[in-house]
Amino acid sequence: MANPSILILAGDGIGPEVMAEVKKIISWYGDKRGLVFDVSEDLVGGAAYDVHGKPLADETMARAQEVDAVLLGAVGGPKYDNLDFSVKPERGLLRLRKEMDLFSNLRPAQCFDALADFSSLKKDVVAGLDIMIVRELTSGVYFGMPRGIFEENGERVGINTQRYTESEIERVARSAFELAKRRGNKVCSMEKANVMESGILWREVVQRVHDEEYPEVELSHMYADNGAMQLVRWPKQFDVIVTDNLFGDILSDCAAMLTGSLGMLPSASLGAPMENGRPKAMYEPVHGSAPDIAGQGKANPIACILSFAMALRYSFDQGDEATRLEKAIEKVLADGVRTADLMGPEGGTPVSTVEMGAKIIEAL
Amino acid sequence: MANPSILILAGDGIGPEVMAEVKKIISWYGDKRGLVFDVSEDLVGGAAYDVHGKPLADETMARAQEVDAVLLGAVGGPKYDNLDFSVKPERGLLRLRKEMDLFSNLRPAQCFDALADFSSLKKDVVAGLDIMIVRELTSGVYFGMPRGIFEENGERVGINTQRYTESEIERVARSAFELAKRRGNKVCSMEKANVMESGILWREVVQRVHDEEYPEVELSHMYADNGAMQLVRWPKQFDVIVTDNLFGDILSDCAAMLTGSLGMLPSASLGAPMENGRPKAMYEPVHGSAPDIAGQGKANPIACILSFAMALRYSFDQGDEATRLEKAIEKVLADGVRTADLMGPEGGTPVSTVEMGAKIIEAL
Ligand SMILES: CC(C)[C@H](C(=O)O)[C@@H](O)C(=O)O
Ligand SMILES: CC(C)[C@H](C(=O)O)[C@@H](O)C(=O)O
Repeated sequence: MANPSILILAGDGIGPEVMAEVKKIISWYGDKRGLVFDVSEDLVGGAAYDVHGKPLADETMARAQEVDAVLLGAVGGPKYDNLDFSVKPERGLLRLRKEMDLFSNLRPAQCFDALADFSSLKKDVVAGLDIMIVRELTSGVYFGMPRGIFEENGERVGINTQRYTESEIERVARSAFELAKRRGNKVCSMEKANVMESGILWREVVQRVHDEEYPEVELSHMYADNGAMQLVRWPKQFDVIVTDNLFGDILSDCAAMLTGSLGMLPSASLGAPMENGRPKAMYEPVHGSAPDIAGQGKANPIACILSFAMALRYSFDQGDEATRLEKAIEKVLADGVRTADLMGPEGGTPVSTVEMGAKIIEAL
Repeated sequence: MANPSILILAGDGIGPEVMAEVKKIISWYGDKRGLVFDVSEDLVGGAAYDVHGKPLADETMARAQEVDAVLLGAVGGPKYDNLDFSVKPERGLLRLRKEMDLFSNLRPAQCFDALADFSSLKKDVVAGLDIMIVRELTSGVYFGMPRGIFEENGERVGINTQRYTESEIERVARSAFELAKRRGNKVCSMEKANVMESGILWREVVQRVHDEEYPEVELSHMYADNGAMQLVRWPKQFDVIVTDNLFGDILSDCAAMLTGSLGMLPSASLGAPMENGRPKAMYEPVHGSAPDIAGQGKANPIACILSFAMALRYSFDQGDEATRLEKAIEKVLADGVRTADLMGPEGGTPVSTVEMGAKIIEAL
């Protein structure tokens, strides 16, 4: 059987730097654990625009459809801020999500013990935090039609459409319940059913999937505005949160910031199973391209490395190896090894991107 | 000249209890400061549904259009959870906002010194916090058409429409810049221009209003997901935030929770000037109807009283009297007087809703 395949799209800004460390980890797994991956690389975002005049070449898109997992770094940067909407770096990312049909975006918000002081929240509020946000990623207002800027009664009007079908809600709900079963067995679904009909349908379908297929999982519903409040007030009340594309964008960023260390947070975007049984999948850090520190060796590669750990778990059925990698990272952090973004008042050993990668391999 | 007029819509849950204390404050201003108001009362929300079969009677709507200011308590409760969407308590509130055309919703997030320990955030992150969120309140996905649940290809689909015209964006932007001039002179506008065309138009129009009419105010733009992060990370970076109806709903609740004491936060919803020069206006606490504690004398009336202080400032041109009321509340808090929701580990003098009202009048 062929080796499992990975397509690396390092992208812009700090993307290539953090991805360089991931590549070393991938090689380590081949050399030391006999997990050999067939790795290829290509361009996305501004880097692709510079070469192809668009943020994702068709050949790259086709290749992404074929591999077992895509690892993405980050896209965007000031150089591309004034490009037309249709060729902005973000469009490359959105095209990957949409055409690979990666409907279930898993965003863990976990607080590492060694970094609990780092949050703007009080230690007892965040220490030991471990929640999983499941964000619908291929529909809603991100993709609904009609959309655009139109002329109407002598002025312009900006229009976007929030749209969810029953089956779109069903599949992401299932994905959340499945996850909950392997975690704290609790799902909280968030929408604005008090204001939006799409939210009414969302709530109803999530409830039905629960009653028919997952009655043993605890389900609650919350309005998204209250959800934002409750995340700030007492985030540990949550286990799995399931929500739509736009609410998920905002609430997962809010949850991410609770942990205080954005440079630590990975994500997985999963679709339907392929012929070989693996889900279509893309893995990426939650942080952006951070153009302000790009190329300076300051970036924290951990979020990107943890994204590869998620790939081990969700694409390659190597949960134990994923845990090994996560434990290695915990150890390095406990030893006080710190990239610039993790340097708190309590100090630590300052390291560069490359040194952090090396320390993690050492700990492996 | 006739006395300025106020319509009180106490609504559901704790609404009537907290409003009872506001009425005493209004009387105090008449008796002691010669500020006599012509006060009338009516029903809204579930309370209106019980009598009229809908959450706002047409006569109440007409009366709201005529008065100088509406004071609203809160709407909603479990008793009404299964009503049809069109007659839910919230629809009464949304009808008032829409028909009075209250496009500018001012939501201060302020942290009272005496309560800084109360936040889930670290004290230095929130002590002295004073930001103002200006939320567009009459358009966007709350009101855009088409909307509803439709049948399509054999399944249901939930649809809502995000819609903003240039003039809708212009007027709320002006309102934010005007406020900023009287505060820290800084506006941050939030949208998702990287994903939504309505956000592109939003950003462009806010920038144009700035350049043409308020070049002296500092303006920045931020994606709403990053906005949620930055609110949690370091909220003091903001002065005035301007954003649309849905983002405003979520971000203002997130900001409110930063202060740790939802029972303290007022809001003002303002429209265009009426013939007498006063803006159409409705004032209401940010907290909800809290059915779980309704009728037990536990509710904190301060948010509702501070909403009346906003009425003094924005509707009745009595900024000094508003400050007097705010100072009285600060004094009572500094003295350790606490309703149940404000009882922290450091203790204090526990009081009921009525006692809190009395203490504030005493301090006046
Ligand atoms: C870059 C942007 C298009 C994207 C989104 O809005 O989904 C990002 O914020 C994210 O959350 O992955
Ligand atoms: C009650 C509800 C309709 C309302 C809203 O969504 O606007 C509330 O959350 C608010 O923020 O005033």
